[in-house]
Amino acid sequence: MSIERITSRQNALIQQVRKLRTSRSERYKTGLFCADGTKLLQEAIRWCEGLHTVILSEELEIPKLPEHVRVCVVTKELMEYASGMGTPQGALFLCRMPKQDREVSLSAGTLILDGLQDPGNVGTILRTADALQIPVVLSSGCADPYNEKTVRASMGAVFRTPPVQLSREDILARCQEQGLQLAVTAMSDDAVDLRKSACNSYAVVIGSEGQGVCKEYMDAAVARLIIPMDPRCESLNAAIAAAIVMWQMKQ
Amino acid sequence: MSIERITSRQNALIQQVRKLRTSRSERYKTGLFCADGTKLLQEAIRWCEGLHTVILSEELEIPKLPEHVRVCVVTKELMEYASGMGTPQGALFLCRMPKQDREVSLSAGTLILDGLQDPGNVGTILRTADALQIPVVLSSGCADPYNEKTVRASMGAVFRTPPVQLSREDILARCQEQGLQLAVTAMSDDAVDLRKSACNSYAVVIGSEGQGVCKEYMDAAVARLIIPMDPRCESLNAAIAAAIVMWQMKQ
Repeated sequence: MSIERITSRQNALIQQVRKLRTSRSERYKTGLFCADGTKLLQEAIRWCEGLHTVILSEELEIPKLPEHVRVCVVTKELMEYASGMGTPQGALFLCRMPKQDREVSLSAGTLILDGLQDPGNVGTILRTADALQIPVVLSSGCADPYNEKTVRASMGAVFRTPPVQLSREDILARCQEQGLQLAVTAMSDDAVDLRKSACNSYAVVIGSEGQGVCKEYMDAAVARLIIPMDPRCESLNAAIAAAIVMWQMKQ
Repeated sequence: MSIERITSRQNALIQQVRKLRTSRSERYKTGLFCADGTKLLQEAIRWCEGLHTVILSEELEIPKLPEHVRVCVVTKELMEYASGMGTPQGALFLCRMPKQDREVSLSAGTLILDGLQDPGNVGTILRTADALQIPVVLSSGCADPYNEKTVRASMGAVFRTPPVQLSREDILARCQEQGLQLAVTAMSDDAVDLRKSACNSYAVVIGSEGQGVCKEYMDAAVARLIIPMDPRCESLNAAIAAAIVMWQMKQ
């Protein structure tokens, strides 16, 4: 394994890392994403075929890496510049996004995320879904699963289970083609208690805390499901609501 | 309602706010805590008897407040100084902690949090528990429920349902006195699938993601419960695991 030493902020790789960290369009243009953290790197070494380049702070021991991985060492100061975290752990790495199967078919018992913009919530949902083995689809308006905050909150789930992203139109068309019924979570009076629903027989849409599920899914859904809660409370955190729906699917 | 204008960083109230935000011991010495945000203030006005003092940025409209509440107006700059958030919403307020009933009795179907240090997780658990109406006890080593991050993640649940804090020794003694059985969540091989357990008949202890449940609770427990998950995954986020246990208690 040959190890490069990078010393300049102007280095092309350092500049690329900074771009990938902050720009979604750069990630999708190059098919690469960036993650940050020693524990995450361990997960990537174990599970991520697309692990591509590793940048390590010089005081860190170099872990055992696959032969094809490019390894670079930098000073603590350069790591801080590249990472953007206040106190980076010293392991920054690039991965190739897995190719998404465009013909992916949806199934009953799938969770669909609609407009969940918070990367922490999306990452936590991907982590939970990976652990409980529930298929998840990110629909329009969701945080990028390859955003560094999403990757971090997923605790490596994005390495194990490639995230599936489809537009709202695409999902609605596929449901219709496949005869798959949609259910939405909603706070409306006519909603059915989640525990009394056959939630496993639907693809279930979860919306954001603020906006709820969009009109298109509302209109297409054959069932509205509610997590009954104290009337003084307005909502649950979206990742919590998703976990409750997924767990109910496992009953 | 008389409105004070504060202009100096040296003002006693501004200094007190900064202390309360960052010092747990200051909070418990004075019995006051600080919260930050316009939505949270609305929740406090609705639910928090102990709402005490409100500091507003001068560009904000002054909401309808109970007669006894002290109201102060500050410039945007002074708000930034007092709040410590990068872009504060402009509503900072102090509340008196509710008195905790030292004789509180524990019951089956209670969730006990052990060593959960992350205020975001603790706040999210308090929010979920408040919505699902599950009693929660914060045991030793948990984040302060009156930490501003906990209050924020709780989305006002701490105003509606006063948090209960008891030491590990106290909880163990009360369980013994009351004949209340403890269960712990654990990843061990001899653990029972949560879905097959009568989790409602226990007080259930949740530990931190890193450490799990402490030895004292492990030894005292009559049952170990597991949320079955893919073997490639190490754990769930603590707030997610707590939500799953609480939802199972509602089955």
